[in-house]
Amino acid sequence: MQMLMKQVTEPATRKSEHPVAADTPYAPSRSYRRPVQEGGVVWLTGLSGAGKSTLAGAVASILTSHGMRSAVLDGDVLRCGLNRDLGFSAPDREENMRRTGEVAALFANEGLIAIVALISPLAALRAQVREIVGNRFREVYVKASVETCEARDPKGLYGKARRGELLDFTGVSAPYEPPLHADWIVDTETQTVGQCITQLANYVECQFVASWDTRERRVPSRGVHTTDLI
Amino acid sequence: MQMLMKQVTEPATRKSEHPVAADTPYAPSRSYRRPVQEGGVVWLTGLSGAGKSTLAGAVASILTSHGMRSAVLDGDVLRCGLNRDLGFSAPDREENMRRTGEVAALFANEGLIAIVALISPLAALRAQVREIVGNRFREVYVKASVETCEARDPKGLYGKARRGELLDFTGVSAPYEPPLHADWIVDTETQTVGQCITQLANYVECQFVASWDTRERRVPSRGVHTTDLI
Repeated sequence: MQMLMKQVTEPATRKSEHPVAADTPYAPSRSYRRPVQEGGVVWLTGLSGAGKSTLAGAVASILTSHGMRSAVLDGDVLRCGLNRDLGFSAPDREENMRRTGEVAALFANEGLIAIVALISPLAALRAQVREIVGNRFREVYVKASVETCEARDPKGLYGKARRGELLDFTGVSAPYEPPLHADWIVDTETQTVGQCITQLANYVECQFVASWDTRERRVPSRGVHTTDLI
Repeated sequence: MQMLMKQVTEPATRKSEHPVAADTPYAPSRSYRRPVQEGGVVWLTGLSGAGKSTLAGAVASILTSHGMRSAVLDGDVLRCGLNRDLGFSAPDREENMRRTGEVAALFANEGLIAIVALISPLAALRAQVREIVGNRFREVYVKASVETCEARDPKGLYGKARRGELLDFTGVSAPYEPPLHADWIVDTETQTVGQCITQLANYVECQFVASWDTRERRVPSRGVHTTDLI
Protein backbone atom coordinates (compact mmCIF):
# COMPACT_ATOMS: atom_id res chain seq x y z
CA MET A 1 0.00 0.00 0.00
CA GLN A 2 2.85 2.28 0.80
CA MET A 3 3.59 2.84 -2.84
CA LEU A 4 0.31 4.65 -3.11
CA MET A 5 1.24 7.07 -0.38
CA LYS A 6 4.15 8.60 -2.24
CA GLN A 7 3.75 12.26 -2.79
CA VAL A 8 2.72 13.06 -6.32
CA THR A 9 3.81 16.39 -7.74
CA GLU A 10 1.19 18.75 -8.99
CA PRO A 11 0.45 18.29 -12.66
CA ALA A 12 1.87 20.85 -15.05
CA THR A 13 -0.46 22.17 -17.71
CA ARG A 14 1.84 22.30 -20.70
CA LYS A 15 -0.05 24.97 -22.55
CA SER A 16 -0.03 27.53 -19.81
CA GLU A 17 -1.96 29.98 -21.95
CA HIS A 18 -5.05 27.82 -21.36
CA PRO A 19 -5.32 27.52 -17.60
CA VAL A 20 -8.48 25.85 -16.42
CA ALA A 21 -9.90 26.29 -12.98
CA ALA A 22 -10.88 22.93 -11.60
CA ASP A 23 -14.43 23.98 -10.89
CA THR A 24 -15.18 25.86 -14.08
CA PRO A 25 -18.34 24.43 -15.61
CA TYR A 26 -17.45 22.84 -18.91
CA ALA A 27 -20.05 24.32 -21.21
CA PRO A 28 -19.39 28.00 -21.75
CA SER A 29 -21.18 29.75 -24.58
CA ARG A 30 -19.45 28.62 -27.76
CA SER A 31 -21.99 29.55 -30.40
CA TYR A 32 -20.44 29.63 -33.84
CA ARG A 33 -17.08 28.40 -32.56
CA ARG A 34 -15.74 25.10 -33.74
CA PRO A 35 -12.55 23.61 -32.30
CA VAL A 36 -9.64 22.91 -34.61
CA GLN A 37 -7.85 20.12 -32.88
CA GLU A 38 -4.42 18.57 -32.87
CA GLY A 39 -4.00 14.83 -32.59
CA GLY A 40 -2.69 13.49 -29.32
CA VAL A 41 -2.71 10.76 -26.73
CA VAL A 42 -4.26 10.97 -23.28
CA TRP A 43 -2.96 8.01 -21.32
CA LEU A 44 -5.03 7.15 -18.26
CA THR A 45 -3.06 5.11 -15.75
CA GLY A 46 -4.36 3.86 -12.42
CA LEU A 47 -5.47 0.82 -10.49
CA SER A 48 -8.22 -1.50 -11.61
CA GLY A 49 -11.44 0.15 -10.44
CA ALA A 50 -9.96 3.66 -10.29
CA GLY A 51 -12.36 4.79 -13.01
CA LYS A 52 -10.20 4.88 -16.14
CA SER A 53 -12.72 3.34 -18.55
CA THR A 54 -15.60 5.36 -17.13
CA LEU A 55 -13.64 8.57 -17.55
CA ALA A 56 -12.41 7.65 -21.03
CA GLY A 57 -15.90 6.95 -22.32
CA ALA A 58 -17.48 10.01 -20.74
CA VAL A 59 -14.75 12.38 -21.89
CA ALA A 60 -14.91 10.99 -25.42
CA SER A 61 -18.66 11.66 -25.47
CA ILE A 62 -18.14 15.25 -24.32
CA LEU A 63 -15.44 15.81 -26.93
CA THR A 64 -17.74 14.46 -29.64
CA SER A 65 -20.56 16.74 -28.53
CA HIS A 66 -18.12 19.66 -28.83
CA GLY A 67 -17.11 18.74 -32.36
CA MET A 68 -13.84 17.05 -31.49
CA ARG A 69 -12.73 13.66 -32.73
CA SER A 70 -11.42 11.09 -30.30
CA ALA A 71 -11.06 7.34 -29.93
CA VAL A 72 -11.08 5.28 -26.77
CA LEU A 73 -8.50 2.52 -26.56
CA ASP A 74 -9.51 0.44 -23.58
CA GLY A 75 -7.03 -2.13 -22.33
CA ASP A 76 -9.73 -4.69 -21.58
CA VAL A 77 -11.27 -4.28 -25.02
CA LEU A 78 -7.92 -4.49 -26.81
CA ARG A 79 -7.25 -7.76 -25.03
CA CYS A 80 -10.21 -9.17 -26.95
CA GLY A 81 -8.73 -8.07 -30.28
CA LEU A 82 -5.28 -6.72 -31.08
CA ASN A 83 -3.75 -8.01 -27.85
CA ARG A 84 -5.72 -11.25 -27.55
CA ASP A 85 -2.53 -13.30 -27.86
CA LEU A 86 -1.02 -11.70 -24.76
CA GLY A 87 -1.25 -12.79 -21.13
CA PHE A 88 -0.18 -11.08 -17.93
CA SER A 89 3.47 -12.12 -17.66
CA ALA A 90 5.98 -9.29 -17.49
CA PRO A 91 7.01 -9.54 -21.18
CA ASP A 92 3.37 -9.79 -22.25
CA ARG A 93 2.38 -6.74 -20.21
CA GLU A 94 5.24 -4.85 -21.79
CA GLU A 95 4.17 -5.88 -25.29
CA ASN A 96 0.58 -4.96 -24.42
CA MET A 97 1.75 -1.46 -23.50
CA ARG A 98 3.96 -1.13 -26.57
CA ARG A 99 1.27 -2.12 -29.05
CA THR A 100 -1.30 0.08 -27.39
CA GLY A 101 1.14 2.98 -27.55
CA GLU A 102 1.86 2.36 -31.22
CA VAL A 103 -1.85 2.26 -32.08
CA ALA A 104 -2.52 5.40 -30.03
CA ALA A 105 0.26 7.11 -32.00
CA LEU A 106 -1.37 6.03 -35.27
CA PHE A 107 -4.63 7.65 -34.16
CA ALA A 108 -2.80 10.80 -33.09
CA ASN A 109 -1.09 10.92 -36.49
CA GLU A 110 -4.52 11.00 -38.09
CA GLY A 111 -5.49 14.00 -35.97
CA LEU A 112 -7.59 12.14 -33.41
CA ILE A 113 -7.26 12.28 -29.64
CA ALA A 114 -6.64 8.73 -28.47
CA ILE A 115 -7.84 8.24 -24.91
CA VAL A 116 -6.14 5.16 -23.53
CA ALA A 117 -7.47 3.40 -20.43
CA LEU A 118 -4.82 0.94 -19.29
CA ILE A 119 -3.57 0.14 -15.78
CA SER A 120 0.04 0.54 -17.00
CA PRO A 121 1.53 -0.06 -13.55
CA LEU A 122 5.23 0.44 -14.32
CA ALA A 123 6.76 3.87 -14.69
CA ALA A 124 9.49 2.62 -17.02
CA LEU A 125 6.96 1.23 -19.49
CA ARG A 126 4.92 4.43 -19.38
CA ALA A 127 8.13 6.28 -20.21
CA GLN A 128 8.64 3.97 -23.19
CA VAL A 129 5.18 4.76 -24.46
CA ARG A 130 5.84 8.47 -24.08
CA GLU A 131 8.92 7.88 -26.22
CA ILE A 132 6.84 6.17 -28.92
CA VAL A 133 4.18 8.87 -29.05
CA GLY A 134 6.40 11.92 -28.65
CA ASN A 135 5.39 15.33 -27.39
CA ARG A 136 1.68 14.81 -27.96
CA PHE A 137 1.61 12.36 -25.05
CA ARG A 138 -0.14 13.27 -21.80
CA GLU A 139 0.08 10.98 -18.81
CA VAL A 140 -3.00 11.27 -16.62
CA TYR A 141 -3.00 9.62 -13.21
CA VAL A 142 -6.47 8.38 -12.29
CA LYS A 143 -5.89 8.39 -8.58
CA ALA A 144 -7.64 6.15 -6.07
CA SER A 145 -6.16 4.01 -3.32
CA VAL A 146 -6.20 0.23 -3.33
CA GLU A 147 -8.65 0.36 -0.40
CA THR A 148 -11.09 2.49 -2.38
CA CYS A 149 -10.76 0.43 -5.55
CA GLU A 150 -11.16 -2.77 -3.58
CA ALA A 151 -14.29 -1.44 -1.96
CA ARG A 152 -15.68 -0.62 -5.42
CA ASP A 153 -14.42 -3.83 -7.07
CA PRO A 154 -16.79 -3.48 -10.04
CA LYS A 155 -15.56 -6.66 -11.71
CA GLY A 156 -14.98 -8.72 -8.57
CA LEU A 157 -11.29 -8.95 -9.42
CA TYR A 158 -9.95 -7.82 -6.06
CA GLY A 159 -11.98 -10.53 -4.38
CA LYS A 160 -10.49 -13.13 -6.71
CA ALA A 161 -6.99 -11.75 -6.19
CA ARG A 162 -7.35 -11.88 -2.39
CA ARG A 163 -8.58 -15.46 -2.61
CA GLY A 164 -5.52 -16.30 -4.73
CA GLU A 165 -7.60 -17.04 -7.82
CA LEU A 166 -5.85 -14.27 -9.75
CA LEU A 167 -2.08 -14.02 -9.72
CA ASP A 168 0.00 -10.89 -10.30
CA PHE A 169 -2.95 -8.62 -9.73
CA THR A 170 -1.89 -4.97 -9.68
CA GLY A 171 -2.19 -3.39 -6.25
CA VAL A 172 -2.62 -6.76 -4.50
CA SER A 173 0.11 -9.10 -5.69
CA ALA A 174 1.85 -6.94 -8.29
CA PRO A 175 3.18 -3.40 -7.87
CA TYR A 176 1.63 -0.17 -9.07
CA GLU A 177 4.04 2.72 -9.42
CA PRO A 178 2.10 6.00 -9.26
CA PRO A 179 3.35 8.64 -11.70
CA LEU A 180 5.75 11.07 -10.05
CA HIS A 181 5.42 13.64 -12.80
CA ALA A 182 2.00 13.08 -14.29
CA ASP A 183 0.82 15.71 -16.74
CA TRP A 184 -2.53 15.71 -14.98
CA ILE A 185 -4.13 14.02 -11.98
CA VAL A 186 -7.78 13.15 -11.55
CA ASP A 187 -8.57 12.14 -8.01
CA THR A 188 -11.57 9.85 -8.18
CA GLU A 189 -11.43 9.08 -4.48
CA THR A 190 -12.26 12.51 -3.12
CA GLN A 191 -14.35 13.90 -5.97
CA THR A 192 -17.60 12.96 -7.64
CA VAL A 193 -17.65 11.22 -11.00
CA GLY A 194 -19.10 14.36 -12.56
CA GLN A 195 -16.31 16.56 -11.21
CA CYS A 196 -13.67 14.16 -12.51
CA ILE A 197 -15.21 14.00 -15.96
CA THR A 198 -15.53 17.78 -16.20
CA GLN A 199 -11.95 18.36 -15.10
CA LEU A 200 -10.50 15.84 -17.49
CA ALA A 201 -12.58 17.00 -20.45
CA ASN A 202 -11.45 20.58 -19.77
CA TYR A 203 -7.84 19.49 -19.55
CA VAL A 204 -7.95 17.49 -22.79
CA GLU A 205 -9.58 20.32 -24.65
CA CYS A 206 -7.01 22.81 -23.40
CA GLN A 207 -4.21 20.53 -24.50
CA PHE A 208 -5.42 19.67 -27.96
CA VAL A 209 -7.55 22.51 -29.26
CA ALA A 210 -5.11 24.35 -31.48
CA SER A 211 -7.48 27.16 -32.43
CA TRP A 212 -11.14 28.02 -32.92
CA ASP A 213 -12.90 28.26 -36.23
CA THR A 214 -15.40 31.08 -35.83
CA ARG A 215 -16.80 31.06 -39.33
CA GLU A 216 -20.56 31.18 -39.46
CA ARG A 217 -22.08 27.75 -39.88
CA ARG A 218 -25.75 28.23 -39.08
CA VAL A 219 -28.30 27.67 -41.76
CA PRO A 220 -29.97 31.06 -42.07
CA SER A 221 -33.75 31.09 -41.87
CA ARG A 222 -35.73 32.63 -44.70
CA GLY A 223 -36.36 36.29 -44.17
CA VAL A 224 -33.58 36.85 -41.65
CA HIS A 225 -31.06 39.32 -42.98
CA THR A 226 -27.55 37.95 -43.01
CA THR A 227 -26.19 40.93 -41.16
CA ASP A 228 -28.12 39.66 -38.16
CA LEU A 229 -25.83 36.68 -38.15
CA ILE A 230 -22.46 38.33 -38.54
CA MET B 1 4.10 -17.25 -62.58
CA GLN B 2 1.17 -19.40 -63.44
CA MET B 3 -0.60 -18.40 -60.27
CA LEU B 4 -0.88 -14.92 -61.70
CA MET B 5 -2.60 -16.15 -64.82
CA LYS B 6 -5.65 -17.50 -63.01
CA GLN B 7 -8.80 -15.90 -64.15
CA VAL B 8 -10.04 -13.39 -61.68
CA THR B 9 -13.75 -12.82 -61.49
CA GLU B 10 -15.09 -9.36 -62.04
CA PRO B 11 -15.42 -7.37 -58.85
CA ALA B 12 -18.88 -6.92 -57.43
CA THR B 13 -19.83 -3.45 -56.30
CA ARG B 14 -21.68 -4.21 -53.09
CA LYS B 15 -23.80 -1.11 -53.11
CA SER B 16 -25.29 -1.55 -56.53
CA GLU B 17 -27.31 1.64 -56.17
CA HIS B 18 -24.08 3.56 -56.67
CA PRO B 19 -22.66 2.21 -59.92
CA VAL B 20 -19.61 4.08 -61.19
CA ALA B 21 -18.45 4.02 -64.76
CA ALA B 22 -14.73 3.40 -64.83
CA ASP B 23 -14.01 6.50 -66.90
CA THR B 24 -16.22 8.97 -65.09
CA PRO B 25 -14.16 12.00 -64.11
CA TYR B 26 -13.96 12.12 -60.35
CA ALA B 27 -14.86 15.71 -59.63
CA PRO B 28 -18.52 16.35 -60.42
CA SER B 29 -20.09 19.52 -59.13
CA ARG B 30 -20.55 19.06 -55.41
CA SER B 31 -21.08 22.60 -54.21
CA TYR B 32 -22.58 22.68 -50.75
CA ARG B 33 -22.62 18.89 -50.50
CA ARG B 34 -20.65 17.27 -47.76
CA PRO B 35 -20.29 13.50 -47.55
CA VAL B 36 -21.51 11.68 -44.46
CA GLN B 37 -19.33 8.64 -44.36
CA GLU B 38 -19.37 5.21 -42.79
CA GLY B 39 -16.21 3.70 -41.39
CA GLY B 40 -14.67 0.86 -43.34
CA VAL B 41 -11.57 -0.93 -44.48
CA VAL B 42 -10.15 -0.93 -47.99
CA TRP B 43 -7.57 -3.68 -48.13
CA LEU B 44 -5.13 -3.36 -51.03
CA THR B 45 -3.45 -6.67 -51.84
CA GLY B 46 -0.92 -7.24 -54.59
CA LEU B 47 2.73 -7.89 -55.34
CA SER B 48 5.54 -5.66 -54.18
CA GLY B 49 5.74 -2.90 -56.78
CA ALA B 50 2.13 -3.28 -57.91
CA GLY B 51 1.35 0.24 -56.68
CA LYS B 52 -0.46 -0.34 -53.38
CA SER B 53 1.23 2.41 -51.36
CA THR B 54 1.02 4.91 -54.22
CA LEU B 55 -2.69 4.23 -54.61
CA ALA B 56 -3.34 4.34 -50.87
CA GLY B 57 -1.68 7.72 -50.43
CA ALA B 58 -3.26 9.29 -53.48
CA VAL B 59 -6.76 8.03 -52.69
CA ALA B 60 -6.45 9.22 -49.09
CA SER B 61 -5.54 12.69 -50.38
CA ILE B 62 -8.54 12.76 -52.68
CA LEU B 63 -10.86 11.63 -49.89
CA THR B 64 -9.50 14.36 -47.62
CA SER B 65 -10.05 16.99 -50.29
CA HIS B 66 -13.65 15.79 -50.55
CA GLY B 67 -14.23 16.12 -46.82
CA MET B 68 -13.85 12.44 -45.99
CA ARG B 69 -11.68 11.03 -43.21
CA SER B 70 -9.31 8.19 -43.93
CA ALA B 71 -6.08 6.70 -42.62
CA VAL B 72 -3.40 4.86 -44.55
CA LEU B 73 -1.99 1.76 -42.89
CA ASP B 74 1.07 0.85 -44.92
CA GLY B 75 2.65 -2.54 -44.28
CA ASP B 76 6.18 -1.19 -44.64
CA VAL B 77 5.50 1.67 -42.24
CA LEU B 78 3.82 -0.57 -39.66
CA ARG B 79 6.90 -2.80 -39.70
CA CYS B 80 8.80 0.19 -38.28
CA GLY B 81 6.31 0.56 -35.41
CA LEU B 82 3.51 -1.74 -34.31
CA ASN B 83 4.93 -4.75 -36.18
CA ARG B 84 8.62 -4.05 -35.67
CA ASP B 85 9.02 -7.27 -33.70
CA LEU B 86 7.88 -9.42 -36.61
CA GLY B 87 9.91 -10.99 -39.39
CA PHE B 88 8.86 -12.74 -42.58
CA SER B 89 8.37 -16.31 -41.37
CA ALA B 90 4.94 -17.81 -41.97
CA PRO B 91 3.72 -17.25 -38.37
CA ASP B 92 5.12 -13.71 -38.35
CA ARG B 93 3.43 -12.86 -41.63
CA GLU B 94 0.18 -14.20 -40.23
CA GLU B 95 0.56 -12.11 -37.07
CA ASN B 96 1.44 -9.09 -39.19
CA MET B 97 -1.83 -9.51 -41.09
CA ARG B 98 -3.86 -10.10 -37.94
CA ARG B 99 -2.59 -7.02 -36.12
CA THR B 100 -3.01 -4.84 -39.17
CA GLY B 101 -6.57 -6.10 -39.54
CA GLU B 102 -7.33 -5.41 -35.88
CA VAL B 103 -5.98 -1.86 -36.13
CA ALA B 104 -7.87 -1.24 -39.36
CA ALA B 105 -11.04 -2.39 -37.59
CA LEU B 106 -10.35 0.06 -34.74
CA PHE B 107 -10.13 2.90 -37.26
CA ALA B 108 -13.32 1.74 -38.97
CA ASN B 109 -15.07 1.66 -35.59
CA GLU B 110 -14.18 5.33 -35.19
CA GLY B 111 -15.80 6.14 -38.52
CA LEU B 112 -12.63 6.42 -40.58
CA ILE B 113 -11.86 4.63 -43.81
CA ALA B 114 -8.69 2.64 -43.24
CA ILE B 115 -6.78 2.10 -46.46
CA VAL B 116 -4.40 -0.79 -45.95
CA ALA B 117 -1.46 -1.38 -48.29
CA LEU B 118 -0.09 -4.83 -47.56
CA ILE B 119 1.06 -7.57 -49.94
CA SER B 120 -1.09 -10.10 -48.03
CA PRO B 121 -0.22 -12.98 -50.37
CA LEU B 122 -2.36 -15.74 -48.88
CA ALA B 123 -6.06 -15.98 -49.52
CA ALA B 124 -6.73 -17.76 -46.23
CA LEU B 125 -5.17 -14.94 -44.23
CA ARG B 126 -7.10 -12.32 -46.19
CA ALA B 127 -10.25 -14.26 -45.33
CA GLN B 128 -9.26 -14.14 -41.65
CA VAL B 129 -8.91 -10.39 -41.84
CA ARG B 130 -12.31 -10.10 -43.48
CA GLU B 131 -13.62 -12.07 -40.54
CA ILE B 132 -12.04 -9.64 -38.06
CA VAL B 133 -13.35 -6.52 -39.78
CA GLY B 134 -16.78 -7.77 -40.76
CA ASN B 135 -19.01 -6.45 -43.51
CA ARG B 136 -17.21 -3.14 -43.84
CA PHE B 137 -14.23 -4.93 -45.39
CA ARG B 138 -13.41 -4.48 -49.08
CA GLU B 139 -10.69 -6.53 -50.68
CA VAL B 140 -9.08 -4.66 -53.57
CA TYR B 141 -6.72 -6.50 -55.86
CA VAL B 142 -3.98 -4.19 -57.13
CA LYS B 143 -3.17 -6.21 -60.20
CA ALA B 144 0.18 -6.32 -61.96
CA SER B 145 2.21 -9.34 -63.07
CA VAL B 146 5.51 -10.35 -61.54
CA GLU B 147 7.20 -9.36 -64.81
CA THR B 148 5.80 -5.85 -64.64
CA CYS B 149 6.57 -5.42 -60.95
CA GLU B 150 10.08 -6.75 -61.48
CA ALA B 151 10.63 -4.30 -64.32
CA ARG B 152 9.52 -1.46 -62.01
CA ASP B 153 11.35 -2.77 -58.92
CA PRO B 154 11.18 0.61 -57.15
CA LYS B 155 12.99 -0.65 -54.05
CA GLY B 156 15.43 -3.02 -55.77
CA LEU B 157 13.88 -5.93 -53.92
CA TYR B 158 13.28 -8.17 -56.94
CA GLY B 159 16.96 -7.83 -57.85
CA LYS B 160 17.95 -8.89 -54.36
CA ALA B 161 15.49 -11.76 -54.40
CA ARG B 162 16.78 -13.04 -57.75
CA ARG B 163 20.35 -12.90 -56.44
CA GLY B 164 19.25 -14.91 -53.43
CA GLU B 165 19.86 -12.05 -51.01
CA LEU B 166 16.21 -12.03 -49.96
CA LEU B 167 14.47 -15.25 -49.03
CA ASP B 168 10.76 -15.97 -49.23
CA PHE B 169 10.12 -12.98 -51.47
CA THR B 170 6.53 -12.93 -52.69
CA GLY B 171 6.23 -13.63 -56.41
CA VAL B 172 9.81 -14.91 -56.67
CA SER B 173 10.42 -17.44 -53.93
CA ALA B 174 7.12 -17.30 -52.06
CA PRO B 175 3.61 -17.64 -53.49
CA TYR B 176 1.09 -14.91 -54.20
CA GLU B 177 -2.50 -16.08 -54.40
CA PRO B 178 -4.52 -13.55 -56.40
CA PRO B 179 -8.00 -12.92 -55.01
CA LEU B 180 -10.62 -15.01 -56.76
CA HIS B 181 -13.50 -12.89 -55.52
CA ALA B 182 -12.03 -9.46 -54.94
CA ASP B 183 -14.53 -6.72 -54.20
CA TRP B 184 -12.68 -4.52 -56.69
CA ILE B 185 -9.73 -4.81 -59.05
CA VAL B 186 -7.38 -2.04 -60.07
CA ASP B 187 -5.19 -3.06 -62.97
CA THR B 188 -2.02 -1.01 -62.71
CA GLU B 189 -0.38 -2.87 -65.59
CA THR B 190 -2.65 -1.75 -68.39
CA GLN B 191 -3.80 1.61 -67.06
CA THR B 192 -2.14 4.87 -66.12
CA VAL B 193 -1.55 5.79 -62.51
CA GLY B 194 -4.12 8.56 -62.84
CA GLN B 195 -6.79 6.19 -64.13
CA CYS B 196 -6.14 3.76 -61.30
CA ILE B 197 -6.33 6.46 -58.64
CA THR B 198 -9.55 7.87 -60.06
CA GLN B 199 -11.20 4.47 -60.26
CA LEU B 200 -10.26 3.49 -56.74
CA ALA B 201 -11.25 6.82 -55.22
CA ASN B 202 -14.63 6.55 -56.97
CA TYR B 203 -15.10 3.03 -55.71
CA VAL B 204 -14.21 3.88 -52.11
CA GLU B 205 -16.52 6.84 -52.08
CA CYS B 206 -19.38 4.78 -53.48
CA GLN B 207 -18.85 2.17 -50.82
CA PHE B 208 -18.57 4.39 -47.78
CA VAL B 209 -20.52 7.57 -48.38
CA ALA B 210 -23.74 6.87 -46.54
CA SER B 211 -25.48 10.11 -47.49
CA TRP B 212 -24.86 13.74 -48.40
CA ASP B 213 -25.26 16.67 -46.07
CA THR B 214 -26.58 19.49 -48.22
CA ARG B 215 -27.01 22.10 -45.52
CA GLU B 216 -25.69 25.51 -46.45
CA ARG B 217 -22.21 26.09 -45.11
CA ARG B 218 -21.09 29.23 -46.92
CA VAL B 219 -20.25 32.31 -44.93
CA PRO B 220 -22.77 34.88 -46.13
CA SER B 221 -21.32 38.22 -47.21
CA ARG B 222 -22.66 41.41 -45.66
CA GLY B 223 -25.54 42.80 -47.61
CA VAL B 224 -26.49 39.58 -49.33
CA HIS B 225 -29.97 38.57 -48.37
CA THR B 226 -30.14 35.09 -46.95
CA THR B 227 -32.85 34.03 -49.32
CA ASP B 228 -30.22 34.27 -52.05
CA LEU B 229 -28.47 31.39 -50.43
CA ILE B 230 -31.31 29.02 -49.86
